[in-house]
Amino acid sequence: MSRTRVNNFSISLDGFGTGEGQSAEAPFGHAGDRLHQWMFATHWWHGPGGSGGVDDALAQRFEPGIGAEIMGANKFGYPGWHEDPAWKGPWGPNPPFHTPVFVLTHHTRPSIEMEGGTTFHFIDASPAEALATAREAARGQDVRIGGGPTVVRDFLAAGLVDHLHAVVVPIVLGRGVRLWDGLEGIDTQYEVEATSTPSGVTHVTFTRPGV
Amino acid sequence: MSRTRVNNFSISLDGFGTGEGQSAEAPFGHAGDRLHQWMFATHWWHGPGGSGGVDDALAQRFEPGIGAEIMGANKFGYPGWHEDPAWKGPWGPNPPFHTPVFVLTHHTRPSIEMEGGTTFHFIDASPAEALATAREAARGQDVRIGGGPTVVRDFLAAGLVDHLHAVVVPIVLGRGVRLWDGLEGIDTQYEVEATSTPSGVTHVTFTRPGV
Repeated sequence: MSRTRVNNFSISLDGFGTGEGQSAEAPFGHAGDRLHQWMFATHWWHGPGGSGGVDDALAQRFEPGIGAEIMGANKFGYPGWHEDPAWKGPWGPNPPFHTPVFVLTHHTRPSIEMEGGTTFHFIDASPAEALATAREAARGQDVRIGGGPTVVRDFLAAGLVDHLHAVVVPIVLGRGVRLWDGLEGIDTQYEVEATSTPSGVTHVTFTRPGV
Repeated sequence: MSRTRVNNFSISLDGFGTGEGQSAEAPFGHAGDRLHQWMFATHWWHGPGGSGGVDDALAQRFEPGIGAEIMGANKFGYPGWHEDPAWKGPWGPNPPFHTPVFVLTHHTRPSIEMEGGTTFHFIDASPAEALATAREAARGQDVRIGGGPTVVRDFLAAGLVDHLHAVVVPIVLGRGVRLWDGLEGIDTQYEVEATSTPSGVTHVTFTRPGV
């Protein structure tokens, strides 16, 4: 069965999935790279010399079994990217997705085929419509909701997420975009686990029972 | 040296230290007792049959070494308690403090001596002034900042907390009073540890270096 998953989604202790002031140079705004240092230190990201424990095992779950990703316009690019016809995302010629990627935007454009199996499609759709489209493209594999926080929140609110892996980083960002707003009681729909690791982060997984 | 401590301070995954709709019957509003079930299950609270692991060890730190507590008006009673001259707090004749307790309120009244060593004093003071008063009453022992979230936040913002023990409970409350608001970067002033336990909570400790 094809599940809808969120993987490696970092938030601060005060719940922000990104900082304030996002730009082409600072995709997470004033958060810089502080939300993702735990991930950069893993073998999965860093290669030889990277950590090999629970952080790495969970980080490794990002790719296997995923057949498509859905992301928000703010993840695909800096504010205003849609006015740049040459913009192909911030990841270079071979983005780390290697599947179809559906970018939710009111400014649709023709699909862009990248190296390594990633193709960006631009759709103006509700969460449920986007998921139906992505699921078809995933050919029976899982669909990843790639963020940012607003998109993850919208899919959680719509009841469309089967598995959420959030990573609570013990920093207080103070401002940015919050993950949990408007999701009162969402925990009651899931089996919840929390696991802290020596890097200082706490992995929180929400898994829908029976899925 | 006398330290200023916060112990056993529970917050939701979205950072709320209390729910919305506080009343005499529901001191934590719509959160009910969900923020404190981990604590009620410990040997410290429950007695025989209670849990004896990390949750219990940290919960036990509540009392030893404390010589005074400072609390906010909303912890001492339901909204409007100051209009009830007979109100002595919600804890019964023998409150669980056993020290002088300084209640921050614009509606001061004469001190109330309770059983078991607790005396309530009512003061209209800034965090720094209240701490100076409580520290003198503590006679060299530590001062506990007892909450609610607004009071803990005010003391953190004023740089007056040496040790914070927050307990992140994996529920999404959605509304209430947040602990972390206005505290951007506060983590950089502390050594931070996060430890999850089998009950599902994550103990987060902020300890000021060298204190």
